[in-house]
Amino acid sequence: MVKVILCGCNGKMGKAITQTALSFPNIDIVAGVDKSLNNNNLYPIFSNINEVNVAADVVLDFSRPEALDDLLGYCNKNSTPLVLCTTGYSEDQLSKISEESKAIPIFRSANMSIGVNVVNSILRNISNKLYKDFDIEIIEKHHNQKVDAPSGTALLLANTIKDSIDGEREFSYGRVGNCKREEKEIGIHAVRGGTIVGEHDVIFAGIGENIEIKHSALSREVFAAGALKACEFMKDKTPGLYNMDDMLNL
Amino acid sequence: MVKVILCGCNGKMGKAITQTALSFPNIDIVAGVDKSLNNNNLYPIFSNINEVNVAADVVLDFSRPEALDDLLGYCNKNSTPLVLCTTGYSEDQLSKISEESKAIPIFRSANMSIGVNVVNSILRNISNKLYKDFDIEIIEKHHNQKVDAPSGTALLLANTIKDSIDGEREFSYGRVGNCKREEKEIGIHAVRGGTIVGEHDVIFAGIGENIEIKHSALSREVFAAGALKACEFMKDKTPGLYNMDDMLNL
Amino acid sequence: MVKVILCGCNGKMGKAITQTALSFPNIDIVAGVDKSLNNNNLYPIFSNINEVNVAADVVLDFSRPEALDDLLGYCNKNSTPLVLCTTGYSEDQLSKISEESKAIPIFRSANMSIGVNVVNSILRNISNKLYKDFDIEIIEKHHNQKVDAPSGTALLLANTIKDSIDGEREFSYGRVGNCKREEKEIGIHAVRGGTIVGEHDVIFAGIGENIEIKHSALSREVFAAGALKACEFMKDKTPGLYNMDDMLNL
Amino acid sequence: MVKVILCGCNGKMGKAITQTALSFPNIDIVAGVDKSLNNNNLYPIFSNINEVNVAADVVLDFSRPEALDDLLGYCNKNSTPLVLCTTGYSEDQLSKISEESKAIPIFRSANMSIGVNVVNSILRNISNKLYKDFDIEIIEKHHNQKVDAPSGTALLLANTIKDSIDGEREFSYGRVGNCKREEKEIGIHAVRGGTIVGEHDVIFAGIGENIEIKHSALSREVFAAGALKACEFMKDKTPGLYNMDDMLNL
Repeated sequence: MVKVILCGCNGKMGKAITQTALSFPNIDIVAGVDKSLNNNNLYPIFSNINEVNVAADVVLDFSRPEALDDLLGYCNKNSTPLVLCTTGYSEDQLSKISEESKAIPIFRSANMSIGVNVVNSILRNISNKLYKDFDIEIIEKHHNQKVDAPSGTALLLANTIKDSIDGEREFSYGRVGNCKREEKEIGIHAVRGGTIVGEHDVIFAGIGENIEIKHSALSREVFAAGALKACEFMKDKTPGLYNMDDMLNL
Repeated sequence: MVKVILCGCNGKMGKAITQTALSFPNIDIVAGVDKSLNNNNLYPIFSNINEVNVAADVVLDFSRPEALDDLLGYCNKNSTPLVLCTTGYSEDQLSKISEESKAIPIFRSANMSIGVNVVNSILRNISNKLYKDFDIEIIEKHHNQKVDAPSGTALLLANTIKDSIDGEREFSYGRVGNCKREEKEIGIHAVRGGTIVGEHDVIFAGIGENIEIKHSALSREVFAAGALKACEFMKDKTPGLYNMDDMLNL
Repeated sequence: MVKVILCGCNGKMGKAITQTALSFPNIDIVAGVDKSLNNNNLYPIFSNINEVNVAADVVLDFSRPEALDDLLGYCNKNSTPLVLCTTGYSEDQLSKISEESKAIPIFRSANMSIGVNVVNSILRNISNKLYKDFDIEIIEKHHNQKVDAPSGTALLLANTIKDSIDGEREFSYGRVGNCKREEKEIGIHAVRGGTIVGEHDVIFAGIGENIEIKHSALSREVFAAGALKACEFMKDKTPGLYNMDDMLNL
Repeated sequence: MVKVILCGCNGKMGKAITQTALSFPNIDIVAGVDKSLNNNNLYPIFSNINEVNVAADVVLDFSRPEALDDLLGYCNKNSTPLVLCTTGYSEDQLSKISEESKAIPIFRSANMSIGVNVVNSILRNISNKLYKDFDIEIIEKHHNQKVDAPSGTALLLANTIKDSIDGEREFSYGRVGNCKREEKEIGIHAVRGGTIVGEHDVIFAGIGENIEIKHSALSREVFAAGALKACEFMKDKTPGLYNMDDMLNL
């Protein structure tokens, strides 16, 4: 059994984690931390992690960058592994995380979905073997309220491809008119519509054959499930900085 | 049995038709017409349709706009239905085709694939019922040698949607940066790679659900099969101008 | 504005409707009915529809077959249209619904998703035009806890195809060993895995081309949205029996 | 430049290779071998490899198992690498190939498509990392004349998955009736229709997310291209047994 303190338990992701944890028999959320103390949950809730009075195996954070110091302080004092899923840290904060990981087991990832990390690792393995014979294009689909294009994950995947191949590559974001494809192009297409949670499809198109590596997120559950897996993975770990690749042996 | 004279029999499409006809038990190509008289085929070949000395039920043309006058002359004189698959006619020639169809049964279509015409008719039927609740986007995929984007067929489908709905719509050809989708947009995405023959995917993305209407051409065979179906359809027809919608009862 | 009484407001679908209604500006849920009176909602809740003391334009029911008599009684007395989304009615109850629709405007559908009904109507329109030239196969995908196969919706679509074509058709549910496809087969393939909400893909495979008509449900929201649309549609209707085809003009 | 002798040059695959070689600037087919001496090709044709009187860098074989002894004899005598794409060898012949590879550089693969081999290697890498959290299902699609199901390639991929994971797995070939998915099942679904050349889609369905690894063959070209790549790869190789994994560094 992995006892977890969930920071940011009343936010959108906090609620998704509380819900998803019900189907993880090895996970027990023993306390929540949130500024808002509204609580329909089965666990006690505190306004600051330093007030938590129950023992835990892992601290899971989906709150805000400002909470970092308190989190590091608590985990250091209690020798508790920390899973950081919050985004938007400053350079200084990232250095601090790195520094503190000498004393604390810290897990951090830009994307908590297992699947996106697996896809990313596949691309890192195969792109250099294929890019001379296959044209590479990426299609991503998201809901109609998303303000930026392409998605951060599409750029993550595109950069993984770009960084892992020997040749030069350039991103192109749409085609109209007279525009024959150049060999070095990676076309990135941002489809927007309805309530699509997130799809990423990487196409390798060759002579007479195509390979597609595709990821579909169906709901926020996917990020919750990744975070809970990370908690299971981090229990009893020695100090150090860990990420999805370590957890998945990618 | 439908006896066919195939004009343009030594071109790329002519060869595809000769090949595909082998699997159409009701079709018998009784003569070919081509400037090039090279002939590995089972039928006799002539350099001009007026030299053909075998009777036929239908004339099938995949040659060039210049041949139009000879074709119309032959078909008028012999009361033979004419299937025109050649593209690139001038306005004058189109008027002439229309005029001559009072005396000759003439079939003409911009796209000989049954499937694309079916997809087009589906879009004509459903778009006005869906556009208020569903965002519409089109993804088309073609080989890396295609010079124009989006494809003519993608534009055909997009215009069918635009013309059949009450609201205003605008095409958008790629997204990058800060660019939240506007309601009136129809995103059209041109993927290019490898040797893809042609795919068109129309996505209706709504609240919690998506509908996709998709067409994939696997080979030139598809256009050959459509043309041969048109020959079967035109046998014994009365004069008039016919198209794919008539043939398919769309 | 459409004032709605929501019966079964504390069930899974009731909660989804309460949530989804927030993004329907014309819908106002004025009262809920449920055996369980737990209530975090913005509307008052009653244990029986006859206790409801606020006026409404439509009654929306996602409860249980046993509630039918009370619903019909209330709607008859108050001349209120009724949207029935409950399934599992007996033959007797279905007759009663039909009978009462002479006095009450009643909407009933086996599947509240707009998209599935649109797909079903497309299949009704095109199957007879295509079945001689295209092989038809259906792939459906659902989560790994689903006990039956194929899904009710897959069978609905398959039967629509079967009933709308002139030729004979037979369903086949898997292929292994020496089993060349017979012309009359409609293959129905039930994929099961993870937490997939529901996908249905109808494939028409012809000579050199494929047409696919595909529906994906992303969440329960889709059924909630269909039900709320039905409420908007039913406001001020005259007595009669209505369904999704009427609402969508399919 | 790689000079190639093409054995079986007048068969279906031989013709596809002759055609595809036109777009491989480094490949020069210097002679063909075939029982049928019909020849529209640019290279001379011989009825037996021992009659070939032009020097070559590689022998490429797409003929029949019976030709094996002549091939091995010629390649041994002339120190020429041999690419074997013929299937259906007996156990004895496979032993002989293995034995002779001590003296001759021999390349052999069950599937000459680069893409299928890449997909196979991806599955070998990721399956053991995913199988506890993701349900695995395979959908394959082929034309309506294929007699066996599932396809050899689907079984190849399924066995790669089965062999690379720690847990037990069982194939299931269709679902109907009351049949909740068991954890150990790998569902393999054989779709048959039209003229589909070959698609294989491996689905990993997890909590709230899916990963798909998909391969589509568009034409015979794909196998021709793989074979020509193998010729380039084998030029000047030292004796030994090579396969696609060696060539692609998989």
